[in-house]
Amino acid sequence: GHELLKQERAKSNIAVEKLSEFLFTKKVIERKRRVLEILESEETFDKSQNYFAGRIDRFEIALARAKKLRQLKVKHGWTLKEFRAAGELISEPGPYGLHESMFLITLHDQGTPEQHEIFLKKAENYEIIGCYAQTELGHGSNVRGLETTATWNSGDKTFTIHSPHLTASKWWIGSLGLTANYAVVMAQLIIDGKPYGPHPFVVQIRDLETHEPLENVHVGDIGPKFGYNTMDNGFLLFNKVKIPHVNMLAKFSRVDPNTNKYVRPSSPSLVYGTLTWVRSTIVLQAGGVLARGVTIATRYCAIRRQFQDRDAQEWERGENQVLNYTMVQIRLLPLLAATFALHFTGQSMMQLYQESQMKMSRDAGKAGSAQRGAGPEETHSGSDLLADLHATSCGLKSLASSIAAEGLEVCRRACGGHGYSSFSGIGPWYADYLPTTTWEGDNYMLTQQVARYLLKSARSVLKGEMPTNDTTHILSNYLSRADMGAAFDVIGKDEDLVAAFAWRTAYLTFEASKHRDEQKKAWNDLLVDFYRLSKAHSQYLIVKNFYEVLRSSSTTNELDPETLALMHKLFRLYALNTLEQESSEFYTSGATTVRQIVLARTNTVMKLLKEIRPHAVRLVDAWDFPDWQLDSSLGRYDGRVYEDMFHRASELNPLNAITVDPYPDSGVTFKKDESREFKSKL
Amino acid sequence: GHELLKQERAKSNIAVEKLSEFLFTKKVIERKRRVLEILESEETFDKSQNYFAGRIDRFEIALARAKKLRQLKVKHGWTLKEFRAAGELISEPGPYGLHESMFLITLHDQGTPEQHEIFLKKAENYEIIGCYAQTELGHGSNVRGLETTATWNSGDKTFTIHSPHLTASKWWIGSLGLTANYAVVMAQLIIDGKPYGPHPFVVQIRDLETHEPLENVHVGDIGPKFGYNTMDNGFLLFNKVKIPHVNMLAKFSRVDPNTNKYVRPSSPSLVYGTLTWVRSTIVLQAGGVLARGVTIATRYCAIRRQFQDRDAQEWERGENQVLNYTMVQIRLLPLLAATFALHFTGQSMMQLYQESQMKMSRDAGKAGSAQRGAGPEETHSGSDLLADLHATSCGLKSLASSIAAEGLEVCRRACGGHGYSSFSGIGPWYADYLPTTTWEGDNYMLTQQVARYLLKSARSVLKGEMPTNDTTHILSNYLSRADMGAAFDVIGKDEDLVAAFAWRTAYLTFEASKHRDEQKKAWNDLLVDFYRLSKAHSQYLIVKNFYEVLRSSSTTNELDPETLALMHKLFRLYALNTLEQESSEFYTSGATTVRQIVLARTNTVMKLLKEIRPHAVRLVDAWDFPDWQLDSSLGRYDGRVYEDMFHRASELNPLNAITVDPYPDSGVTFKKDESREFKSKL
Ligand SMILES: Cc1cc2nc3c(=O)[nH]c(=O)nc-3n(C[C@H](O)[C@H](O)[C@H](O)COP(=O)(O)OP(=O)(O)OC[C@H]3O[C@@H](n4cnc5c(N)ncnc54)[C@H](O)[C@@H]3O)c2cc1C
Ligand SMILES: Cc1cc2nc3c(=O)[nH]c(=O)nc-3n(C[C@H](O)[C@H](O)[C@H](O)COP(=O)(O)OP(=O)(O)OC[C@H]3O[C@@H](n4cnc5c(N)ncnc54)[C@H](O)[C@@H]3O)c2cc1C
Repeated sequence: GHELLKQERAKSNIAVEKLSEFLFTKKVIERKRRVLEILESEETFDKSQNYFAGRIDRFEIALARAKKLRQLKVKHGWTLKEFRAAGELISEPGPYGLHESMFLITLHDQGTPEQHEIFLKKAENYEIIGCYAQTELGHGSNVRGLETTATWNSGDKTFTIHSPHLTASKWWIGSLGLTANYAVVMAQLIIDGKPYGPHPFVVQIRDLETHEPLENVHVGDIGPKFGYNTMDNGFLLFNKVKIPHVNMLAKFSRVDPNTNKYVRPSSPSLVYGTLTWVRSTIVLQAGGVLARGVTIATRYCAIRRQFQDRDAQEWERGENQVLNYTMVQIRLLPLLAATFALHFTGQSMMQLYQESQMKMSRDAGKAGSAQRGAGPEETHSGSDLLADLHATSCGLKSLASSIAAEGLEVCRRACGGHGYSSFSGIGPWYADYLPTTTWEGDNYMLTQQVARYLLKSARSVLKGEMPTNDTTHILSNYLSRADMGAAFDVIGKDEDLVAAFAWRTAYLTFEASKHRDEQKKAWNDLLVDFYRLSKAHSQYLIVKNFYEVLRSSSTTNELDPETLALMHKLFRLYALNTLEQESSEFYTSGATTVRQIVLARTNTVMKLLKEIRPHAVRLVDAWDFPDWQLDSSLGRYDGRVYEDMFHRASELNPLNAITVDPYPDSGVTFKKDESREFKSKL
Repeated sequence: GHELLKQERAKSNIAVEKLSEFLFTKKVIERKRRVLEILESEETFDKSQNYFAGRIDRFEIALARAKKLRQLKVKHGWTLKEFRAAGELISEPGPYGLHESMFLITLHDQGTPEQHEIFLKKAENYEIIGCYAQTELGHGSNVRGLETTATWNSGDKTFTIHSPHLTASKWWIGSLGLTANYAVVMAQLIIDGKPYGPHPFVVQIRDLETHEPLENVHVGDIGPKFGYNTMDNGFLLFNKVKIPHVNMLAKFSRVDPNTNKYVRPSSPSLVYGTLTWVRSTIVLQAGGVLARGVTIATRYCAIRRQFQDRDAQEWERGENQVLNYTMVQIRLLPLLAATFALHFTGQSMMQLYQESQMKMSRDAGKAGSAQRGAGPEETHSGSDLLADLHATSCGLKSLASSIAAEGLEVCRRACGGHGYSSFSGIGPWYADYLPTTTWEGDNYMLTQQVARYLLKSARSVLKGEMPTNDTTHILSNYLSRADMGAAFDVIGKDEDLVAAFAWRTAYLTFEASKHRDEQKKAWNDLLVDFYRLSKAHSQYLIVKNFYEVLRSSSTTNELDPETLALMHKLFRLYALNTLEQESSEFYTSGATTVRQIVLARTNTVMKLLKEIRPHAVRLVDAWDFPDWQLDSSLGRYDGRVYEDMFHRASELNPLNAITVDPYPDSGVTFKKDESREFKSKL
């Protein structure tokens, strides 16, 4: 293995370090190295038993790590960025996860200065540990349907938090199962018998001393999951628990304790922003998430040899690296291209988001409404730019997390049998990542938001309004050229390739608009078309972003010509492979001809695979994952795959400290069990 | 939940029981019930802690179950079929798994009568427990590349089994890690310095009394996996271990102890048969494997409500069952159709296999060669029928197991957040099933075998030879009509739909033949095309089988007209949805027009979803999975989903017997840990 990776690296001239710096900046890379050094020296973070431990042990270790991490933050005076970098290196969800994200964010964003004083400060000091309790057993996506109630008692100026049915039980709440003693609880505000929709309340749930649940609070862990087992997702039922007035987070809407009246929020645009930020983060991370799998599979497939090439000459002795088989390449290299495509798209999204936040902060005073995770059928108001950004983030969150999750499984399977071992490092990572396709907006449902936005844009363009952003621009461009036809040179010209993706989106948008606005088809009958539309639009955005990043002067300045040329090939591979997979939409829309698609498939894509192949290992090297982070036998930087597999199996595996009685008639299962001693020895 | 499923069942007239009997026969269903009753009454098989236990506990329980199952077999005088039915109901891989399958089969099929006496009898009585050790750390698919050697010692008439390198270590071997004391070891036979390829040897590896590894044998468990953790897959290294001459399984080839000469096998066709049988079994099971996921998701989506329909009238109060959303339907209903399609295809394959076995038994004498799992680039000889069956089984194994594995994840995700809980029952099942895509021929590599066969068939047709089987028939039919064009009425006529699939296969076959035989393209450059070709051919076979089963007189006699009509709709949904997904191949081949594809997508498929929707719950009921088997909160027959989720989380979950110290500055993680007491209380 060792020699083969050396050879691979010698075969390519890609300036790995330069490329890494271009992707992440030097500063970020150095920060990672610095933090890594500290983590590696702490025994608490030793990963060697991660894959062996059962749920209870894993949770206990994760809790110990969460504590240690907080201690290190204090000790080294880490910034938030350093703290986050540590979390990424450790790469497992931990029991403080929701405390450190949604609990703090919600207190911060939705609390008044008085509430910051009472709750936020303590939370920041870990004197109270919280979580974000929105989802219930019976309701997730449909936040409006939540059943937990918060009834205003005008008499003693309190709220009564109550779970009227079993299905009102909070469920899935991260950090709640065993860890949190506080929760932000989303509950239906009821004043004088009248419901005002879900609002956030701060509720203590466990004793700060004994950590036992408070009276009338039924709380616990919801049990094992496909992944995420280092996290204590929890359930929570209230039996008429009273909380004071100040516990309703009141930055946007509140109950006036004197008049007992509900005070409405003025505008929901700020909350809108948080949602967009969370989704943009998912898009940005998707590239890196997938890159872990691609790194592991690419390195392994470069050292794995199996069979001789069928057409090999007699003098070409020895087995072929499986990465040389085109059927392996077609699975891995487009995903390699996708890692960069997603990374650049995420960066652009974040930039757009920050720009829009600057704009927004001007009208910060008017911000409002506290709901999070609104359903796909609700309409948000907001400026044009924001609406575009919101829709973009929905579509891209959906597409990017699907590409990453499904791509990881492709990587795992590309490793053959060994991909199935936990030591591959792909399976456990995949299992932990998978819920990203469901939370922060289920990937299927989010597409309705995108469609709604595109339909609105189409209406505006059809009315003859001037284009105000890229979306309306591509729609009106399509309208003006539709009769003429497209005639894009998708194989020869990169900008035409982008234009073909735009054309297809526009075509599908107007089709949808015809169905909904002219033919008045039922919304439900169009969901499948909307899903396709959203996917098409998001693919266009990814292709466009990739293209624009490569053209930008900062890129052409930073990257050497060879690396830049290779990046262009990756761009083309990503775009043409996508085009080919979705070919029927491209030719029915007239964006390409059938001939072009056949050519792309049989010639261009195959040629690109050949050209990219020699650089594959160096390209994944540029993602710069330390071995410690990957924790993978197959993905080791040095290629010593088999030695590492064997070491883990024979030296670290506690099952091997057991001797069984193999005969069916004996009631004894384990004749000798030294697995406990074994573990404590390690 | 309860009420909703009742209503669902009331809405449809499908004769569930009849349909079940049609699928499985009354006999099989009664057998299942009988066995189920016994299992349910045995505490060993209590499933309530399955999802909670860690690897060591799970393995120990699985071993206890394996023993108990064997005891029950003896006690009740179970037939092999009853024994297998029990295994299916228990639904977890167990430590005797490989003993009871490949070890016994190999001894039986490849041993001489003398060897049956020495090894098989003891194995059948569980006096020795074995496994099948072929794969090594360095070689899986390429069996010819195995490194373990078996060197003939002409002096003392023994073989020396040896592992010359670390990569020669046997790896992945089921039942080997802790349980087996014997192994069938595939090793390179070497006589007088000359290699004769891999052959099977029976090797004792552990002491029959102490169960400790024998001298010079290094054996153990390979560690945790994505699933399959109730099984002890193992590693095995030999340091020059001597075994007697009789331990080489000698039915087909052997070493003559007197002359020290290798005696060649006459014909490899019997082994060929075992492979085909194993793959046919995978095809047959794929329908049922997928059906578990579809059953769970369909029932859950029928009781899960979320949102009101956007176009709902004011008087239509309440939330919509998510199964009513077309975006849920398009994910689940084609998979529901696929369960039947795969089931019927598997049955047809098995029938063909049995017919061919009858034929074969006539020339049983000539049977030969002991290799199993030959690589994709090797050529087998054999009769036309066999070659067809072999290729068919390769292509269908690949496609069917991919459909089932990937379909299960679609089902899981359709359940939203709750799909991620282990209590959904889908995730753990999926994780255990996943290696089926890799073993018995990696799904990507198998497609090369199909292509090779189709290329051969094309050559024969192009030479003007008369068609001898369905494959050559559809190829020559295509040739004779290609110039004229197809003009199939795929939307109106079922037989035209089948014909369109045949046409596409033929088209792709001749394209491949042009590339390989005329243009002399490299084999490796064609792998991607071969993959598509194999998929196309297998999809054709599934569609054709489904169609033929529905037309057969036994079907039309057994099923009432309503159910039969619905089955036809399922057939059309499966075929048209597949056609639409692969549309570019259909129009480039001229099998359909672009217009037909657009129509299929926007009208026909959507209409079929609507028509099938009311029967969805009854259709999954017909698969007849006992709740005990599914072990799923979401998939319960009675729809009491939330109660069951809650019960498992709050009553069965050992994590809830723990109280943590939540503060980062405290070194204590668990203040109170009663999880052990908790578990023993259960
Ligand atoms: C690991 C994990 C951690 C979590 N952590 C938290 C947490 O800390 N705090 C918290 O509050 N929540 C948390 N959640 C909950 C998560 O936010 C929800 O599971 C998610 O929002 C999906 O909602 P649901 O489960 O209700 O799906 P459902 O809405 O029930 O979806 C079920 C199915 O119906 C479909 N569907 C539903 N409505 C429609 C529609 N209108 N049109 C078309 N199709 C539709 C969906 O596509 C899906 O296939 C977590 C979940 C997981 C898995
Ligand atoms: C859970 C489990 C249980 C198992 N149990 C047993 C057992 O009991 N006994 C036993 O002997 N074995 C067992 N195996 C091993 C199994 O049979 C092998 O893993 C399987 O044959 C795949 O081989 P491989 O791992 O060498 O894959 P590889 O051949 O290394 O494949 C790696 C990658 O290369 C590709 N590739 C390889 N060659 C080519 C080619 N010529 N052309 C194109 N692509 C190629 C593959 O598609 C794959 O993507 C088990 C495996 C698992 C996961």
